Amino acid sequence: MTCSHLNQLSNRNLFFKCENLQKTGSFKFRGACNAVSKVVSTNQKSPDRELSVVTHSSGNHAQAVSLAAQVQGVTAHIVMPSNSPAVKKEAVRSYGGLIVECEPTEQSRVATADQVAERTGATMVHPNQSPDVMAGQGTMVFEILEQVERVDAIVVPVGGGGMLSGVSVAAKKLCPHAKIYAAEPKNADDCAVSMARGELTPLPAPPVTVCDALKTSIGPHTWPIIRDHVDDVITVTEEEIKAAMRLVWERMKLVIEPSSAVGVAAVMTDRFQRLPADGHQNIVVILCGGNVDLEHLPWMR
Amino acid sequence: MTCSHLNQLSNRNLFFKCENLQKTGSFKFRGACNAVSKVVSTNQKSPDRELSVVTHSSGNHAQAVSLAAQVQGVTAHIVMPSNSPAVKKEAVRSYGGLIVECEPTEQSRVATADQVAERTGATMVHPNQSPDVMAGQGTMVFEILEQVERVDAIVVPVGGGGMLSGVSVAAKKLCPHAKIYAAEPKNADDCAVSMARGELTPLPAPPVTVCDALKTSIGPHTWPIIRDHVDDVITVTEEEIKAAMRLVWERMKLVIEPSSAVGVAAVMTDRFQRLPADGHQNIVVILCGGNVDLEHLPWMR
Ligand SMILES: Cc1ncc(COP(=O)(O)O)c(C=O)c1O
Ligand SMILES: Cc1ncc(COP(=O)(O)O)c(C=O)c1O
Repeated sequence: MTCSHLNQLSNRNLFFKCENLQKTGSFKFRGACNAVSKVVSTNQKSPDRELSVVTHSSGNHAQAVSLAAQVQGVTAHIVMPSNSPAVKKEAVRSYGGLIVECEPTEQSRVATADQVAERTGATMVHPNQSPDVMAGQGTMVFEILEQVERVDAIVVPVGGGGMLSGVSVAAKKLCPHAKIYAAEPKNADDCAVSMARGELTPLPAPPVTVCDALKTSIGPHTWPIIRDHVDDVITVTEEEIKAAMRLVWERMKLVIEPSSAVGVAAVMTDRFQRLPADGHQNIVVILCGGNVDLEHLPWMR
Repeated sequence: MTCSHLNQLSNRNLFFKCENLQKTGSFKFRGACNAVSKVVSTNQKSPDRELSVVTHSSGNHAQAVSLAAQVQGVTAHIVMPSNSPAVKKEAVRSYGGLIVECEPTEQSRVATADQVAERTGATMVHPNQSPDVMAGQGTMVFEILEQVERVDAIVVPVGGGGMLSGVSVAAKKLCPHAKIYAAEPKNADDCAVSMARGELTPLPAPPVTVCDALKTSIGPHTWPIIRDHVDDVITVTEEEIKAAMRLVWERMKLVIEPSSAVGVAAVMTDRFQRLPADGHQNIVVILCGGNVDLEHLPWMR
């Protein structure tokens, strides 16, 4: 989608990749589909075995894996903290995922997922460090290139970096002249810090940001790919994120979640504005998801 | 747009015509463009005269006429009650409309618009009773038929009936087998009552409904067209409207205003469900607008 008002505000031709309209409401369905397909195809020799996957997530990845598994006739075990909101559990169940409750700690999540894998033989599908997940996220680049004539740059929000690594690898192969910019909340700027230091530097503590989906740090598998393929990281404040989110709702009539707004906010920053017009005309901004609690909108908090 | 979840809920193939994504955020831009074009083309013989249009509206029609006039180099005088919300005045001004304030009564609106017409020679563009406006609204049928294979029915929200008359005339010509259903809030059911009685029956008093844009009654120009071209009127409660609105936001990730939700609610009613599947498979639902106050959503009131 395009929006003349946002083009004017940003002084660029913006092309929005609407992953909020993707099945399950985020790009996560891409990686989940690819990972589940791999499980199916690598087990074709043992057709008697009941196939299953397991993951720990309470967010978009959980829904994505549940539906991807349902579509492909595979069981999905979703490890979720017992205190997850009822609406998130409901969403997973509606896509056929089996919920396994755990304590609300990182340790318990990982341990519980390991136990499930051990007990059921399920294959772990990590939300962002699995190469199959990264590759799946990268498929959006094919669709972008089908619809946008000459892509000068792609702006990609980054959490664990699954999307950023998949998109940057695909883009540097398919349209090598295009620059890849990561967009990150200032309050969760591990990717920016890692790039500046040239060394993987996870956040020391859980960050405070309106972007639930971007609280994760990039990890050992995504870091080298990001380091080698991403041109720069642009960080934005919480206020910039909320304003951008509202702008898209108001002007584009699209429901996007705060994590999507990070990319929109990035192209509005002074820093992005200072990039030369030459070579920065056609900018693709990924609206990565639209799953938001309609009772609690950021501008009402 | 389509949505598999809503298809399941309604037991039909629903095709949503997204007029919330139209310029100015509603279908009103169609009628406004056509009416302003007519003013320009019928005055081509007197190129020295400064052309202008006038209308009284504080809603979507005001914004639509302002932009249509701006695009075509015509002055737009918009008569608005002095107590209109600042945000609505701002929207009109942002599209280049000149605001003329009046008392917040129907009488004052009409009188003020007449005065402006007298003083400036501006042509009145009525929001729904102008034939040029009706015809303009009907253009959406061409686009619908370009994208939907076999249209069995079109569901059209009705206020003053400009959209309903334009769409029904166009559809009965271009796809005569398609049924036309009007969708109306129960609390503002003048179209349903008029059809039942076979006689134009405006609302006796201003209705109370969450659908600001559907408070107007159908009028002397739209009534005969509606009477002769519309198959039936389906009314829906305020609760049904709010639930349908929320469903579209949540599942389709589209910002729609309550008036758009009336059509969605209509296809979910028992009454619509009882229509035979045969001949009611492919249903077009018009999402007529997306201009909504993001601070006050109906489910928060
Ligand atoms: C909507 C949305 N945007 C962005 C991200 C971040 O993606 P990644 O962790 O692959 O960087 C996520 C991950 O949950 C997400 O759900
Ligand atoms: C969004 C929206 N839907 C529906 C209507 C009703 O259209 P009509 O008055 O032509 O019936 C309007 C009119 O203002 C509107 O703005």
